[in-house]
Amino acid sequence: MNLLLLTPDDLVTPAQACIHDSRRLRHLHEIHKASPGEELTVGMTDEGIGRARLIELEKERALFEILHLDTPPPPALPVHLLLALPRPRMLARSLENIATMGVKRLTLLHTARVEKSYWQSPELQPERIEAHLRLGLEQARDTVLPVVDLQPRFKPFIEDQLPAALTGHRALLAHPGIGESCPRGLPMDQPVTLAIGPEGGFIPYEVERLQTLGFEGIHLGPRILRVETAVVSLLSRLF
Amino acid sequence: MNLLLLTPDDLVTPAQACIHDSRRLRHLHEIHKASPGEELTVGMTDEGIGRARLIELEKERALFEILHLDTPPPPALPVHLLLALPRPRMLARSLENIATMGVKRLTLLHTARVEKSYWQSPELQPERIEAHLRLGLEQARDTVLPVVDLQPRFKPFIEDQLPAALTGHRALLAHPGIGESCPRGLPMDQPVTLAIGPEGGFIPYEVERLQTLGFEGIHLGPRILRVETAVVSLLSRLF
Repeated sequence: MNLLLLTPDDLVTPAQACIHDSRRLRHLHEIHKASPGEELTVGMTDEGIGRARLIELEKERALFEILHLDTPPPPALPVHLLLALPRPRMLARSLENIATMGVKRLTLLHTARVEKSYWQSPELQPERIEAHLRLGLEQARDTVLPVVDLQPRFKPFIEDQLPAALTGHRALLAHPGIGESCPRGLPMDQPVTLAIGPEGGFIPYEVERLQTLGFEGIHLGPRILRVETAVVSLLSRLF
Repeated sequence: MNLLLLTPDDLVTPAQACIHDSRRLRHLHEIHKASPGEELTVGMTDEGIGRARLIELEKERALFEILHLDTPPPPALPVHLLLALPRPRMLARSLENIATMGVKRLTLLHTARVEKSYWQSPELQPERIEAHLRLGLEQARDTVLPVVDLQPRFKPFIEDQLPAALTGHRALLAHPGIGESCPRGLPMDQPVTLAIGPEGGFIPYEVERLQTLGFEGIHLGPRILRVETAVVSLLSRLF
């Protein structure tokens, strides 16, 4: 946690915040070993970054005086990530990485090689998704929560929603063995939609449907990466 | 596991291998759900990749006929990674990522902000390190184990060993806020030594010592990445 991410609910006055949750309190007590009087880097969800002074730190609560919140968060990546739903354990780490890297738009998609049972995972509860995204933001010193939508049906999403979402976007399909080597250093003013398949990849029918919509195949060479690693590798190379 | 990585110890004859360890057996039983007669992708440690046919699969052992091992492993990255020893939990995942990405030379280094207790971690036992590296190789379908050395004293290493190791290498120091933005797509025939600091970074004295040895500072922008993520991000951008 390189930044303590506050929410409007934490505010007791416009200049004072009080936190009660065990995760942030434990971090203050055990990792940061904070003490009253100390200044910390804080951010307000979806707003600015700044400093706060710890006034009281008890087992059950921490009270802060907010000194300022006027630094803008780091720039976002101009990307809409279309990710085949990973297995629950990988989903957690993928969400953290996605938030840390600066993605602000994520669609979790069903594809033929996504096990149906993954859609029943408690990790898909909105508060669990948000918790992982917040961890990623705190790591990167960002404040802006990504917007996430779940698309448990491939065909209706591809046919009814995706075409409009692609307007003005360059569409890239990361898939081993097709297309060109992943491009490098794309311009930050060109929105991109990046599709990443599940373990085992997209099936040929899905590749074809996406290509028909204008997706260009790209690949990272012969090494097969885990989804959470592929997300970081692709974003680092593209932007 | 996208490849079953064999060792010479697994060979019962030059064309037959038998495995007994619970990790690989569990994978065959539970994830791969393999059955006798089936062909799998296998590799021999530090040698080629090919196919093997499963002859017997029991609870305690699996017997394979090796059909061929004539495909070379994927190309290595021309990089010597100099990594401040991460906390044990991060070390495990970092080792997997390092092996998956194709690094073949890793030095784990003490720096001022590495907690001394990390050097006592059981994760540093050679067999534990190798186990994590093997997981990473199996993910990437690689066979060549990285060479790892431990350097628990910064100054003697920097003074007595590092200068010779840098001969012919471009030396890069990943450090927030110094130098240029991380370069992209370096030539694969130019060896690179890449230094990555601990959580909290190198201290100014260490940065200065490394710069004196010819290290160029590079950075990834304002976002602070976890070590295991930074490794993937830097390697993906550099090569």
